Amino acid sequence: MGQQANRSGGSLKVLGKRLPNLDAVERVTGRAKYVGDIDIPGMLVGRALRSAQTHARIVSIDTSKAEALPGVKAVVTYKDAPKVALWGHRGYVLNDRVRFRGEAVAGVAAVDAETAEKALKLIAIQYEVLPFVIDPEEAMKATASKLFEDGNQEGQARILTRGDVAKGFTESDKVIERMYHCPTMWSGSLEPRCAIAQWDGDRLTLWASTQAPGRNQDNLCALFNLPDANVRVIASYVGSGFGTKSANHMDEGLTALLARKARRPVKLQYSREEEILDSNTRFETKFYAKVGVKKDMSLHSLDVRCITNLGAYHTRLGGLGNHCTHVYRIPNVRTEQYRVHTNIPNTGPTRGVGDPQECFGLESLIDEIATEMGWEPLEFRLKNIKRTGDPIARGGAGTEDGRLVTQVLDKCLEEGAARIQWSRRNATPGAGQTGPKMRGIGVAATERGGGGGQGGTTIKVFKDGSVVLFFASTDIGTGTRTTLPMIAAETMGVPVSSVRAVSGDTELAPYEGGSFGNRTLQGTGRAVEAASRECLRQILAAAGPMLNNAAPADLEMQDGVIRVKGQPDRNVALSAVMVRRGNIVATSITNQPQTGMDVERTSGAHFAEVEVDRETGKVQVLKYIAAHDLGRPMNLTIVENQLEGGTIQGLALTQGEEMRFDPRTGACLNANFLDLKPPTALDFDPRMLEAIVVENESILGPYGAKGLGENPTHPGMAAIANAIFNAAGIRLREVPFTRADILKALSEQQTTPGRTA
Amino acid sequence: MGQQANRSGGSLKVLGKRLPNLDAVERVTGRAKYVGDIDIPGMLVGRALRSAQTHARIVSIDTSKAEALPGVKAVVTYKDAPKVALWGHRGYVLNDRVRFRGEAVAGVAAVDAETAEKALKLIAIQYEVLPFVIDPEEAMKATASKLFEDGNQEGQARILTRGDVAKGFTESDKVIERMYHCPTMWSGSLEPRCAIAQWDGDRLTLWASTQAPGRNQDNLCALFNLPDANVRVIASYVGSGFGTKSANHMDEGLTALLARKARRPVKLQYSREEEILDSNTRFETKFYAKVGVKKDMSLHSLDVRCITNLGAYHTRLGGLGNHCTHVYRIPNVRTEQYRVHTNIPNTGPTRGVGDPQECFGLESLIDEIATEMGWEPLEFRLKNIKRTGDPIARGGAGTEDGRLVTQVLDKCLEEGAARIQWSRRNATPGAGQTGPKMRGIGVAATERGGGGGQGGTTIKVFKDGSVVLFFASTDIGTGTRTTLPMIAAETMGVPVSSVRAVSGDTELAPYEGGSFGNRTLQGTGRAVEAASRECLRQILAAAGPMLNNAAPADLEMQDGVIRVKGQPDRNVALSAVMVRRGNIVATSITNQPQTGMDVERTSGAHFAEVEVDRETGKVQVLKYIAAHDLGRPMNLTIVENQLEGGTIQGLALTQGEEMRFDPRTGACLNANFLDLKPPTALDFDPRMLEAIVVENESILGPYGAKGLGENPTHPGMAAIANAIFNAAGIRLREVPFTRADILKALSEQQTTPGRTA
Repeated sequence: MGQQANRSGGSLKVLGKRLPNLDAVERVTGRAKYVGDIDIPGMLVGRALRSAQTHARIVSIDTSKAEALPGVKAVVTYKDAPKVALWGHRGYVLNDRVRFRGEAVAGVAAVDAETAEKALKLIAIQYEVLPFVIDPEEAMKATASKLFEDGNQEGQARILTRGDVAKGFTESDKVIERMYHCPTMWSGSLEPRCAIAQWDGDRLTLWASTQAPGRNQDNLCALFNLPDANVRVIASYVGSGFGTKSANHMDEGLTALLARKARRPVKLQYSREEEILDSNTRFETKFYAKVGVKKDMSLHSLDVRCITNLGAYHTRLGGLGNHCTHVYRIPNVRTEQYRVHTNIPNTGPTRGVGDPQECFGLESLIDEIATEMGWEPLEFRLKNIKRTGDPIARGGAGTEDGRLVTQVLDKCLEEGAARIQWSRRNATPGAGQTGPKMRGIGVAATERGGGGGQGGTTIKVFKDGSVVLFFASTDIGTGTRTTLPMIAAETMGVPVSSVRAVSGDTELAPYEGGSFGNRTLQGTGRAVEAASRECLRQILAAAGPMLNNAAPADLEMQDGVIRVKGQPDRNVALSAVMVRRGNIVATSITNQPQTGMDVERTSGAHFAEVEVDRETGKVQVLKYIAAHDLGRPMNLTIVENQLEGGTIQGLALTQGEEMRFDPRTGACLNANFLDLKPPTALDFDPRMLEAIVVENESILGPYGAKGLGENPTHPGMAAIANAIFNAAGIRLREVPFTRADILKALSEQQTTPGRTA
Repeated sequence: MGQQANRSGGSLKVLGKRLPNLDAVERVTGRAKYVGDIDIPGMLVGRALRSAQTHARIVSIDTSKAEALPGVKAVVTYKDAPKVALWGHRGYVLNDRVRFRGEAVAGVAAVDAETAEKALKLIAIQYEVLPFVIDPEEAMKATASKLFEDGNQEGQARILTRGDVAKGFTESDKVIERMYHCPTMWSGSLEPRCAIAQWDGDRLTLWASTQAPGRNQDNLCALFNLPDANVRVIASYVGSGFGTKSANHMDEGLTALLARKARRPVKLQYSREEEILDSNTRFETKFYAKVGVKKDMSLHSLDVRCITNLGAYHTRLGGLGNHCTHVYRIPNVRTEQYRVHTNIPNTGPTRGVGDPQECFGLESLIDEIATEMGWEPLEFRLKNIKRTGDPIARGGAGTEDGRLVTQVLDKCLEEGAARIQWSRRNATPGAGQTGPKMRGIGVAATERGGGGGQGGTTIKVFKDGSVVLFFASTDIGTGTRTTLPMIAAETMGVPVSSVRAVSGDTELAPYEGGSFGNRTLQGTGRAVEAASRECLRQILAAAGPMLNNAAPADLEMQDGVIRVKGQPDRNVALSAVMVRRGNIVATSITNQPQTGMDVERTSGAHFAEVEVDRETGKVQVLKYIAAHDLGRPMNLTIVENQLEGGTIQGLALTQGEEMRFDPRTGACLNANFLDLKPPTALDFDPRMLEAIVVENESILGPYGAKGLGENPTHPGMAAIANAIFNAAGIRLREVPFTRADILKALSEQQTTPGRTA
């Protein structure tokens, strides 16, 4: 697996080096305690009763038999649930109505799993069955069954306008219209959700597999009307999250509710089926797009209408990212987004949120119009992409009121093209390939914001010079338990081995929302840098009197030794300073709203070479280049890990992971790994993948770093679709790209000669 | 029960009020989890094997049978113990030599208590028995059996000289010599020591019933050669400590050793017998004193030789306090202290440390010389006591290089005398009392330093305005979990109910030694005040922009609302500020060495009225006044609780709690409550006790407060001895004052008519 380490920053001692994850041994030896591993004396087993209704009102619910079963310590229904909506959610912990098949309608806590499951079967519910709707466009119709009193549409349509698209289209030399469809897609974690709740009077401790301990805390405080100081959320180790564990804390609320009623600790762990059905899925999008270009190879007008299927409850996200407005110079752009509730499981933020879907639509569309015009698609992109200094919209505004800084999308495209040997690409897509296997190369560009939100850390330097770094977000596999200590070690001048990270504990560290949206390294990392500087300031101030009253400005620390600059013999060990000083504790809280005119984005480009088997419909990825701007890399091992993992996750969407629903019953037909078919290591040979780090320097992140968790998932669908088109001349506009789809498209192509797109 | 609340500080909102302990409900309902209540899955039961030898060398130790017993997971002996001495201790966790009967020689961890105890019996030890010594003066002889290679004396004699005592005695008009003896006395806690150790790789968490989590951490880091960051000590609730839990962490080290070997968590809880034998006892003192006075009623010369019986291992403390040098104006003073190891159980700091013993000697001696001279002992004291502005020795020096500030010992004496109606006292001790019951009144004065050492706190203000206060010392019944939150609430201007204290956790809070030596309120309290001010500063700075950019100096906070001073309508709630600000976390670390010329001490005076039964020897305390300077009282309920508890504890020494040793075997003869006879509520009716708060203003403590935990234990023995003398004309110079002692003294008095002292 390749990498490019043409980075600067030679003066850095710790950052930029390769360092295995500091907690790797704990994780691989099983010593790391995930929530499921935690046992608390007297702890009960929690289970949720899941409804077989797709849309129904609960008429009556009788829990008396369940409650009477020996060993059952608590049964809760919607009657016990606080009438407080969950974060980013329309529903309560339990509702008097079922809005998707598999929704929890009751919870049980019992002395063991067998008793709890037996009790679930003893709960008798009478339903008033309601008509259901699973297609978002159907759900928008006035005649559709309503999930909520105010209808199925979540909020107003989100409309964003720049220039005048109608005029833009009349001015264009060529206009095409297409629709791209991404279905509801699984995006859960290998570690299913798990929570343990323990009450001590009016204080609640919740251990949870969550990306967002801060949001959990907010949620629980709201649910139980508790001050923040009374709720502690601990998420020491999380078995990945991919966004799904950053919202919909229904299970955590249910666990706390059960524990409160049972007056004992309760653990509730999801089964695989529950994790698929009632985590948060990647939302379905219907991306209707119209694009116009001028003969001078310039993009001129873009009109997008996107309908998102939010499923039952999600409210917060679920639309487009900023691809339509931020990747290319387009004078006229309009986007119109509808976010619609239907009777399918709840959706929510998942890696990349709406960006992979938007990128699939836009980057396919760009390819299609280039084909229509006979333009070379890479050249077309390079001509139109926004570059450093270009106007760009700040925040979600349409007006381009800012200026793009430190943009290296051009380099991502150029370096990626060089690496995949773009010149090998078929000039005429699908043409001249005679054998059963057709090869082709495709490209897709992407971008996203990074950081933002509140980040915070508290750093404690002990009197022997050892350091603990507290932060409330979690390491969901992104390596922050390694990278953040590296930043502290670099800034202070101590060995990384002397820094221990305590993550995901809301008691110890300042509030932050959690680990999502490319934000932890950038936001929390800045806080770590600032708090480390404050620790260093206090250390040098305390060391001065031990070094003939040297001025702090004349001192520096390296490897835990404070020296008078230029006089290496005049030095004192950190431990000698600290044992006199006691402890040093410094906190930094950062907020990163992008103010001023500078707007920093994080870009990337993917290149795919595929082989399409004309006889079987199989698409094999032969080579895949993921070139990304990530500012200055802090730890190349972790960077590559993120690039590779994210890229594979994006590619996975092309092959499987679609959640399928029975139109007659609303039931999910593949809520298990066997039928869901998430790709395995056999599907994508990691050796075909090459990650390229395009050196850059962030103005926002610590030491020039940028967050990167989301971006690698974006371009996969588009890059593969464009490569398949280049290989076989067939244009796939619906993911996943099944063998049946490929074979069908190939057969249609044969029966309609001359069709090229 | 009385109190005097003539305190100033009317502008205070929270402090100075009466407030029940914030954790009172938790404690009395059993919801508070003491270490013994904590259960960890997979936890083993630890037990110590205690030797029946008094002094012996281990020749061989065979643990093979114990290790082979099913259910035994670890056996450790001195071979497993790190060769690192415990804090303030000469020994290791386990030693190859037994220095007192009951010393632990091996530890076992097993799946249950029965197995652990069975395993102890399977450990075979061969000893080389050595001669033993239990009397400290015997131990000082060259021929005595040696506990250590360098002999039995711990360090050099501590000699402190002011003026010239020999010359002083020649200049004196009257000189007397006496010896006062305090035996080894139990001072343990109702909650026996208990520890749980859990290893996670090279990180150790220890839950312990300790006053000194910081010292435990130091100890464990030294024992296992770990960085401070790798050792976390948690002592959430402690069932009292009285100093004994501030040192000798042998049991905690043993627990950690067992857990490391067993690779499982281990809990080791002491039995009552173990708690008596192997906690830390109050050390025996032989106080040889010679005093000279001049006819003008002035104290002129004092020579004291004090021999302390340290028992087996203790090194750090074990001498006099500062009574001899700090209470009275005496131009010539010499003290000479010998600290000697003997083969009795280990001693250590216990409430008041050496002060009660010293106070007993000095205040008895003062009474005796007054009697000899025919002086009224209160008048004599008032004439000679040091007063504000008097020269005083700083630190442990002999030279009076400082100046005493804020001293109110005169007021303590005067107010106490008024309350007990001193004028009722027999002018001639023991005279004119004809019935079987003789009444008398006695007085004793005392003093001590307060605060000092490192204190620290971290305060976190959450985004709803709720507050958590972290500090690493523990609330051993002293109410710091209530008083420190009150200081935070007062300083910040928030309701006390919004402040939660997290105590005794070395991970969360800055290092401090622990709760002992009158220091927590004063040292940590100052840190709480400082950190609260910093929080308030940040809050007001954040509130300014929400109040038309009001300058922080124009803002104030009361009850969680920030107001523009003088314009109450311009206000904003703390929660509204914090939700924008995120969190605020501030740390303060204070060191309180007394620098400069000002020396602040804490004084007090006790008055006892007793009734001595001529026929039974019974001494009944009829009335007892404890008048104390404690600076400004922070919470009168807690202050009274401390004064009453400490006073009763001091009085208890007059009646029982002596540990008796068999001179033939060295065995402790009363290592159980039945034979030890600690007084109960029936022995001291609390209604006879009145605590007087003598208002003062500390220059060191927060809001003028002073620490007070130690002082009330000091004067009890002397006040009762002086009262008995006043009642019956008998002078008791050895505690406890048993009925047999009283009857014996009365009979000697009858057979030697004319004897008055």
